[in-house]
Amino acid sequence: MRITRPTLLADCQIILDNIDRLSEKFRSQKIGFRPHFKTHQSAVVGEFFRNKCQGITVSSVEMAEYFAARNWNDITIAFPANPLEKSAIRELSEKVNLNLIVSDPATFHEFDDLKKPLNWWVKVDLGNHRAGIKPEKTEEIIQLAAQIVESKTHSFEGILGHTGQTYHLQSEQVVEEENRAIQVAESLRKKITDVLHTPCKVSMGDTPGCSLLENWQQIDEVRPGNFVFYDLMQMGIGSCHFSQIAMAMACPIVETKANENKAIIHGGAIHFSKEHHPEFKYGQLAVPNASGGWSGLMENSFLESISQEHGIISFDSKYSSLFSLGKLAYILPVHSCLTVDCMREYYLLPDLKRATTYRY
Amino acid sequence: MRITRPTLLADCQIILDNIDRLSEKFRSQKIGFRPHFKTHQSAVVGEFFRNKCQGITVSSVEMAEYFAARNWNDITIAFPANPLEKSAIRELSEKVNLNLIVSDPATFHEFDDLKKPLNWWVKVDLGNHRAGIKPEKTEEIIQLAAQIVESKTHSFEGILGHTGQTYHLQSEQVVEEENRAIQVAESLRKKITDVLHTPCKVSMGDTPGCSLLENWQQIDEVRPGNFVFYDLMQMGIGSCHFSQIAMAMACPIVETKANENKAIIHGGAIHFSKEHHPEFKYGQLAVPNASGGWSGLMENSFLESISQEHGIISFDSKYSSLFSLGKLAYILPVHSCLTVDCMREYYLLPDLKRATTYRY
Repeated sequence: MRITRPTLLADCQIILDNIDRLSEKFRSQKIGFRPHFKTHQSAVVGEFFRNKCQGITVSSVEMAEYFAARNWNDITIAFPANPLEKSAIRELSEKVNLNLIVSDPATFHEFDDLKKPLNWWVKVDLGNHRAGIKPEKTEEIIQLAAQIVESKTHSFEGILGHTGQTYHLQSEQVVEEENRAIQVAESLRKKITDVLHTPCKVSMGDTPGCSLLENWQQIDEVRPGNFVFYDLMQMGIGSCHFSQIAMAMACPIVETKANENKAIIHGGAIHFSKEHHPEFKYGQLAVPNASGGWSGLMENSFLESISQEHGIISFDSKYSSLFSLGKLAYILPVHSCLTVDCMREYYLLPDLKRATTYRY
Repeated sequence: MRITRPTLLADCQIILDNIDRLSEKFRSQKIGFRPHFKTHQSAVVGEFFRNKCQGITVSSVEMAEYFAARNWNDITIAFPANPLEKSAIRELSEKVNLNLIVSDPATFHEFDDLKKPLNWWVKVDLGNHRAGIKPEKTEEIIQLAAQIVESKTHSFEGILGHTGQTYHLQSEQVVEEENRAIQVAESLRKKITDVLHTPCKVSMGDTPGCSLLENWQQIDEVRPGNFVFYDLMQMGIGSCHFSQIAMAMACPIVETKANENKAIIHGGAIHFSKEHHPEFKYGQLAVPNASGGWSGLMENSFLESISQEHGIISFDSKYSSLFSLGKLAYILPVHSCLTVDCMREYYLLPDLKRATTYRY
């Protein structure tokens, strides 16, 4: 395969190592591992997880439909159940063991008459301040849990949270914050079991937390996603080392600005997404190696700006011989999930097997 | 069609009005109109331009291939010609009248042996500071033009620029800046024709300039793209009124935060792109109307934050009855080009005919 256009590459060995490290960490603690597939989005990489997880997490009904059709039969849709999608959810629930999340009694009420049982998690806000009931509204949480417990058809699984606030922290703070969130969740679990006399599981755990915190105590399952590829944002947080980032975009150099140590690449917002990082800009350049991959970060060398198709890279002068017309720039993405979503296909090193995503 | 997931809508009447207004403006001045198709990206909307333009502009060879296969036979690829794509460019040139841009003699040299003639534009930097030769390097521009003029096969069309700097300006400044760029281009044209005794056309004109500047003097052709849909960014510049914005995303409300005048929608970075605007955030809410479209802007009501699938909207309390569970929020995008690219399909009001894009 000859690369002539922006092409997203993913390194199989790094992916397998990332999966093995995290799945083993949780297996050894007897904690359920339910990876979020919204990062890789692809049946091909999904297979790398086969027999290494208890089920999977997805972020939409559409993504659930894709993986349900590819032999994943225990799926959590970690997005507020949408009453408008009731009929699609009903169809899915007839094929797989489906777990939904809810934070509003009105939502649960909309689904209460489905004949096929659904497993429900009450979404709690563990500090991310996006979706979910705030822990201080304990009564609301217990009432919603009770509504599910009392339902004739459905089953109550427990409480589920996403500690996305860790994306704005650094290593040690991540560990502190994740521990704090675990305490909040455990306290809620205790109140629910005390009042309702029913088992209540806890599901939480994002990539920074799952990468950095060692002891997950009594948590029942974790749902990290990004760790499969990692990216510069995670490296900035301290969740991973450079060598654990599994993804880079190869972009043709189409115009050189020799005296400025800059070049124009084919590679812009429709390839990388507009995710910007204060330290890494729109991406950082990596040193290409002889096997079609990359072997090291280029210091002071970034994707400085992007428009729809164009990118401008700037690089340290010592690398300038690598950026002549017709060569490829290798750029690590700031946010691998969005870059994958922009591209919807990527090629797995070393064999360049093609992986397409659910939106392809 | 029942909308249950994030769905991008485009209003046919507004699109047709936008096309008629601009095509007529340039027809009446006898200026070539070569709209950029990177905004709508779709064969369906492309047909609205049939017989109203002299040719089309695209931003990649891939996009050129898509439109060439759909009976567009005069195509300018307004992106630096990429020597790695030489074989794809050769194939395209055998099917359509192909116009390429170049700013580096080494690039032109790579294509010089193609047997099928190509039409070349020398890319000049008219103030956008992305690609192209700076006007003060007049000698370089003339030398590259001479190299093309002297080629046995290829033809020299003229100079081409993109005044993308207008995206950072406001109405009156846009007009001033566009006039300044026109003077720079005209002066370059004169020098080239004086030295090389060859005709030299001028191609320029972005959406803000084409919308706001009335008299385009002797410019040969313009290449605006965004005007077909416009968006909030253009409204912020002053290029369009609200009523000329042809596009909105319908997003299901999946969680309400009644006391905060906020709600969670299904609609995030993979739908809108991460384009952020200091005034309009990730989008502004519009008032739904009875025909499945929208009829007015909601003041103080924005898409405040987004993650991969989630969005949080905040709205003025007077609209709160519109945002209950199961209803749809209508959100105007900040940047229609990137939103279209994220979605790759949209539905044309009033009949909800589906348009898919070249990357679908």
